[in-house]
Amino acid sequence: MNMKAPRGTQDLLPGTIENWQYIEKSLTDLCRRYNYKEVRTPIFEHTELFQRGVGDSTDIVQKEMYTFEDRGGRSLTLRPEGTASVVRAFVENKLFGLPNQPTKLFYFGPMFRYERPQQGRMRQFVQFGIEALGSADPAVDAEVLALAMNAYQELGLRSLKLVINSLGDAESRTSHREALVQHFSPYKEDLCADCQLRLEQNPLRILDCKKDRDHPAMESAPSILDHLNESSKQYFEEVKSHLDNMGIDYQVDKNLVRGLDYYNHTAFEIMSEAEGFGAITTLSGGGRYNGLVEELGGPESPGIGFAMSLERLLMALQAENIQLPVDEGLDCYFVSLGDKANKEAVRLTYQLRKAGIQVDKDYQGKKFKAQFKTADRIRAKYVVVLGEEELENNIAKVRDMATGNQVDVSLLQLVAHLQKELEGEK
Amino acid sequence: MNMKAPRGTQDLLPGTIENWQYIEKSLTDLCRRYNYKEVRTPIFEHTELFQRGVGDSTDIVQKEMYTFEDRGGRSLTLRPEGTASVVRAFVENKLFGLPNQPTKLFYFGPMFRYERPQQGRMRQFVQFGIEALGSADPAVDAEVLALAMNAYQELGLRSLKLVINSLGDAESRTSHREALVQHFSPYKEDLCADCQLRLEQNPLRILDCKKDRDHPAMESAPSILDHLNESSKQYFEEVKSHLDNMGIDYQVDKNLVRGLDYYNHTAFEIMSEAEGFGAITTLSGGGRYNGLVEELGGPESPGIGFAMSLERLLMALQAENIQLPVDEGLDCYFVSLGDKANKEAVRLTYQLRKAGIQVDKDYQGKKFKAQFKTADRIRAKYVVVLGEEELENNIAKVRDMATGNQVDVSLLQLVAHLQKELEGEK
Repeated sequence: MNMKAPRGTQDLLPGTIENWQYIEKSLTDLCRRYNYKEVRTPIFEHTELFQRGVGDSTDIVQKEMYTFEDRGGRSLTLRPEGTASVVRAFVENKLFGLPNQPTKLFYFGPMFRYERPQQGRMRQFVQFGIEALGSADPAVDAEVLALAMNAYQELGLRSLKLVINSLGDAESRTSHREALVQHFSPYKEDLCADCQLRLEQNPLRILDCKKDRDHPAMESAPSILDHLNESSKQYFEEVKSHLDNMGIDYQVDKNLVRGLDYYNHTAFEIMSEAEGFGAITTLSGGGRYNGLVEELGGPESPGIGFAMSLERLLMALQAENIQLPVDEGLDCYFVSLGDKANKEAVRLTYQLRKAGIQVDKDYQGKKFKAQFKTADRIRAKYVVVLGEEELENNIAKVRDMATGNQVDVSLLQLVAHLQKELEGEK
Repeated sequence: MNMKAPRGTQDLLPGTIENWQYIEKSLTDLCRRYNYKEVRTPIFEHTELFQRGVGDSTDIVQKEMYTFEDRGGRSLTLRPEGTASVVRAFVENKLFGLPNQPTKLFYFGPMFRYERPQQGRMRQFVQFGIEALGSADPAVDAEVLALAMNAYQELGLRSLKLVINSLGDAESRTSHREALVQHFSPYKEDLCADCQLRLEQNPLRILDCKKDRDHPAMESAPSILDHLNESSKQYFEEVKSHLDNMGIDYQVDKNLVRGLDYYNHTAFEIMSEAEGFGAITTLSGGGRYNGLVEELGGPESPGIGFAMSLERLLMALQAENIQLPVDEGLDCYFVSLGDKANKEAVRLTYQLRKAGIQVDKDYQGKKFKAQFKTADRIRAKYVVVLGEEELENNIAKVRDMATGNQVDVSLLQLVAHLQKELEGEK
């Protein structure tokens, strides 16, 4: 009997979940300030969406997707990334027709890739991402980069590096492509099998090859930046000028190309430079993808976005020794003695909860002392004691666990008393 | 090319998503007060988990699961409900060994059942649920019922009905089962094919049959309540006594049996009694499942829980005409004129966002008047105007859109000014 979570997946449990909740709250508030609105798309899509929207030739589509037939014979795939789904939703729901453009969206959610599980790489992992659809203003590129950097900075990360590049428009890419083919063709026999294929299909990706990266021809390969036409050059200059003006540090890396076919103009990655973060330093990446909306059946709508893995974000926090300020204590714990008092404690607990107070009680039939021990262990701020004597007098003892002060409070005043005490704590 | 969301799934978009966010926030706060902690389990599990944890003979397992093989040949299933996964996580992560028991957990998330889509029934739907594992105190049953009712009440629902029953312990169920077989056997030929099978496999579920419900033998069928042994009877009395004491209204329905095999003792459902809510009035259901933890390989740990569909909750809110108080406005919109001012607006927007202010600007190259129109449409509370003249004087005009008041603010004071104005609004 296999009663374990499937390989490459994990349970997020109390003690850990608080960090996830904190991060999500922080990112959600960040998106609120930047005026990005949440979108949720289905966990699975028609397989075709990813074949077209991620690209047939990518590793993701060729090797890593969870694809299956449903009971009606449809080919469905658990989403391996978020952009294709969000763009599909933008097209299907005709968001391009709304008066306020660009459409600025963010998402959280599980993504699925069948890879060999390793540290920071799960088969089910969680991504946060944003997409801005419908504007080709370089200021939007700057906004997306700023939000991405702020996302990490606001959680306390300091060892960050923003790397940017321009992949240019179609004309620039064609010119660059031809130069790459010319440049690498004489060395074809030296290159790895994959790169020999890339030389014909997508020579840009040779620059990204891990096997061939030390080949002398790499160093001298023509740079996309030397092949940008005037408008692409100007676009990139404007993006950089906004970043300079906003005071956002970055480095230009002419070899940054990104794996997916549909990127153009601005491409970027954010890396952690924290010591001991591990070999893969990329925290997130993104870029502009003018043309993808049309590819998925929509009208011309330039787009840009980025995505980050929350698992890798958590690793980066750990590498920089950052403790998120999560509160795991409890406002109030009820200690009761005797059947009658227990029953009254159940009722009062219910009243307190309805009045907005966080409170718990014993459900294990524990003795008085053991109940107090529990209150201590779960770091209750206040303990309410109700024994038979108190019940007869219609009072409870309320102890402030920080100071040790204890007062008698009429049961009728209990809600108001605790509300007031807890209000003072904030 | 099929570029639509798969049948039975939906996109949650801006304009709708705010209700979902509001509901999740409300339920999360409710769980905080009741001291239930969030747990997240994977989207898919080994198929065997649901065969054992939901039950081989159920419709869910026999007809409705999304089951597929991964690239490693494992049989995986998209989770059709939450309890089996949470109990699996409780066992696998040895939560039963933690000092504070019962373990009180809640979850949100998509669930998947291949059914014919109809109003309020999707193939991918979202459930909220809680599980309390490790206590057999009737006060926990009362707590779970109270939380379930509060969940609806705090969102404003009024037309609610809580129906409870006891299914007793194993001994009581055996006795009832024998009485049911004796009672229905003379009418076997009258019953539907399913019920003829149920008579042998699980006669309790005959009481739940929609085809046979008008058969005269139904009315006179032996009630589980007449077959409860002393301890089961006392357990049920205690649960009811807590509810009475807490002032929670309920009805006992001796025919409430619930579809899943593992329920015992307390079973309950919450219905909407709102007019026009539709034929299926059940909003949520749950009950006690002592024995399930052992079934899934853990030590003896009594459990109880419930789950609700958020889609059906939204339908109930609509039926009662309840508008959730969601705020879709924007704190601040930037109106700028001329290249230089535009660029400065990009920088200032970034500064404001970093300072906690929600702000957006134009990225479509709109004229002055059109930018103001946008500010109106998205209900900006403040508009910041920056033209060339203002820029030369290092000021911006800040207009309060509610009052029409407009003041000149030094650019250096802009963050502080808006923070103060917005603070006053709260």
